[in-house]
Amino acid sequence: MVRIERNILAKNDQFAAANRTWLQARGILALNLVSSPGSGKTTLLTRSIQDLKGLYPLAVIEGDQQTSHDADRIRATGVPALQINTGKGCHLDAHMVGHAIEGLNPSARSLLFIENVGNLVCPAAFDLGEAHKVAILSVTEGDDKPLKYPDMFHAADLMILNKIDLLPYLDFDVDRCIDYARRVNPAIQVLRVSARSGEGLEGWYAWIQERMPS
Amino acid sequence: MVRIERNILAKNDQFAAANRTWLQARGILALNLVSSPGSGKTTLLTRSIQDLKGLYPLAVIEGDQQTSHDADRIRATGVPALQINTGKGCHLDAHMVGHAIEGLNPSARSLLFIENVGNLVCPAAFDLGEAHKVAILSVTEGDDKPLKYPDMFHAADLMILNKIDLLPYLDFDVDRCIDYARRVNPAIQVLRVSARSGEGLEGWYAWIQERMPS
Repeated sequence: MVRIERNILAKNDQFAAANRTWLQARGILALNLVSSPGSGKTTLLTRSIQDLKGLYPLAVIEGDQQTSHDADRIRATGVPALQINTGKGCHLDAHMVGHAIEGLNPSARSLLFIENVGNLVCPAAFDLGEAHKVAILSVTEGDDKPLKYPDMFHAADLMILNKIDLLPYLDFDVDRCIDYARRVNPAIQVLRVSARSGEGLEGWYAWIQERMPS
Repeated sequence: MVRIERNILAKNDQFAAANRTWLQARGILALNLVSSPGSGKTTLLTRSIQDLKGLYPLAVIEGDQQTSHDADRIRATGVPALQINTGKGCHLDAHMVGHAIEGLNPSARSLLFIENVGNLVCPAAFDLGEAHKVAILSVTEGDDKPLKYPDMFHAADLMILNKIDLLPYLDFDVDRCIDYARRVNPAIQVLRVSARSGEGLEGWYAWIQERMPS
């Protein structure tokens, strides 16, 4: 089994490298959004799109086991979105994403969001050719998640703590959570936001702006 | 790949059948608790243990990628618990659980909780030899999850809607969620609880009591 897994990942890495070359040549910033189900990825995304669509061309690839609810929510904002249904699959892979990029054909100097299947385990292992993995952790999930799912927080460059408007009703220690995340990834950056209330989103937009190819 | 997956599942099913035979022969009720990370499984479990440990002998198998935090929390209640760390793995399988059962050696006519790795995708496909899969969905995760992760809600006999104390602060439509769950599994039972406040737990305990071998 270990060899089979290694072969799958090696093949995935070839597709990912091709995606990355294509994206970089066109100055497209691709962000791979990873999290548990229900962390608020799609709400963060629709809000970000509303706020950013005057600034950059945008496109979205949506991953879910079933339904096109999320792509429908994105398309309602006027931004092109393509839904990948993985069926039994628990993550997007670089081959699927390569086909989606072909289908969407995002413009040069655009921002491409890839919303992965809600899963804190499997998507950590699959490079899609993105510039950065962004891990979204909602504060309703508990402050111990970075230690319990270390691969994901190790793979991510940014951790977004979402739903901070709910902190008054929860037992969630923000400092402890950040400490845990830094134990598995000393370089990880952290932002605190509420996609619902809008609190903290300016930090997220600034983080994106710094990384947009000029 | 499809054949490899089928072979793995066939092998798993053999181990699961052996676990089930062993458990049923001893009158042990095994419940496989499945959910996203952070749905409150461990809080539900520690509270249930406190409330039920006078009634039945109890034992717990804990699954996580890393750490023994959860088993430590369970052992603090005085109940025997064994932690399985799956490393890169995204689910418990029947072989791991068989070894854990050997290690724990639960008493006849006991209640065995198996807390799976937090993941709404992969654990759906792996029978562990349990009597029932119980899917815990916290209301902070959004009411669309049964449609987006249908395999899990199809595989479960019971859906526990947890964290209902937070409903006043959320946009979560309980009736819509139940409707979605019944679309993928018309026979699924539903309970509404708050493991933190204790609301609704009597329904969960009654559900267990009805299923305990007499």
